[in-house]
Amino acid sequence: MAKVAVCLSGCGVFDGSEIHEAVLALLALDQAGAQVICCAPDKPQMHVVDHVQQKPAEGQTRGVLAESARIARGRITPLSAVEAREIDALIFPGGFGAAKNLCTFATGGADCEVDPDVERLVNDMIEMGKPVGFMCIAPALMARIAGRRRIAPTLTIGTDAKTAAAVEKMGAKHRNCPATDIVVDSQYRIVSTPAYMLASGPAEVFQGAKKLVDEVLKLAKK
Amino acid sequence: MAKVAVCLSGCGVFDGSEIHEAVLALLALDQAGAQVICCAPDKPQMHVVDHVQQKPAEGQTRGVLAESARIARGRITPLSAVEAREIDALIFPGGFGAAKNLCTFATGGADCEVDPDVERLVNDMIEMGKPVGFMCIAPALMARIAGRRRIAPTLTIGTDAKTAAAVEKMGAKHRNCPATDIVVDSQYRIVSTPAYMLASGPAEVFQGAKKLVDEVLKLAKK
Repeated sequence: MAKVAVCLSGCGVFDGSEIHEAVLALLALDQAGAQVICCAPDKPQMHVVDHVQQKPAEGQTRGVLAESARIARGRITPLSAVEAREIDALIFPGGFGAAKNLCTFATGGADCEVDPDVERLVNDMIEMGKPVGFMCIAPALMARIAGRRRIAPTLTIGTDAKTAAAVEKMGAKHRNCPATDIVVDSQYRIVSTPAYMLASGPAEVFQGAKKLVDEVLKLAKK
Repeated sequence: MAKVAVCLSGCGVFDGSEIHEAVLALLALDQAGAQVICCAPDKPQMHVVDHVQQKPAEGQTRGVLAESARIARGRITPLSAVEAREIDALIFPGGFGAAKNLCTFATGGADCEVDPDVERLVNDMIEMGKPVGFMCIAPALMARIAGRRRIAPTLTIGTDAKTAAAVEKMGAKHRNCPATDIVVDSQYRIVSTPAYMLASGPAEVFQGAKKLVDEVLKLAKK
């Protein structure tokens, strides 16, 4: 049974993990019989967004780990305690949290910073030849890590030209892809799917998530 | 295309909607081609629970509508604005929010109060012969409404004897059921599934959610 870490970034599309993407990745993993560890950085969120008003809720603070625990139903590990040697694969759902709390792509674009524990774990996975999956906007953090390593994996963030250009500027190669499909970089064992960068609803997200999970698990066995 | 309201109660198993149950119901609805309206009461949550510590976070307040909007990706309607004549079916995911914010079963047991808008909408659906689906602990609020209407629909909350006894005390008939199945009351068009009252993970929840959604949509056409 493959042991897969799912790295969350809060709970809600505008300031944390995109909830549908996270849950549908967990569904695909459970259907495939994988053992799942949810994890998240133990630090404050960049900010809190009121999801009705869709603007920042002033004066509120929430922690990435505690909010991510909502998606994980309480069973969550601080990212700092997750070691690449203990897992077979790693998956990052999307949502603005991936671009606000796991890296700063939402504010910094191609000059973004990546959370040190995210960068450590992704680098260790690549060193060990273990697969990593990225959904929605999460490939942006992989592109930034790739640029610093001077490798150029092929990724997708869907079809948005501006975001694709930023991904290429950071050092990755971008390939357009529909919501229901995946892009696989066999050399670096990196799998990506556009999810809500393009999806019309959860059914499309699930098609992409299921392909991503199945490919990641296949690469984990090689 | 059937128009289905999904009534949420916050965002997180311990103080709101159980996130997997809500998302997997939305997935099944999207796969079936239904049009979905997410809704929730616009009022404060009973309390906020830290999902890492799994105990109340003192001094915090959150609103049911704003937190539910996280699951709905921002597109949510106040429950007070939802009318039975405008929808074909209604579904309640579970989570403690259903027993803390939609009714007070978590603290009041068989003597619980039901949110007035929840009671109005469920009563109107039953009057109009339109189906209502309940997951996990949500059937408890149906049992309370049933008792006040002096009807005795058959429901399931899984196999927990104490909860089943409370459901029967309130006036419903309880039937044991595994996580992957549903109980259908054809007379009142009420469908229920145990979800995380019994499920080992999202794959089992989805089996029950898919059966519930498909049955609710079938009953909506009759």
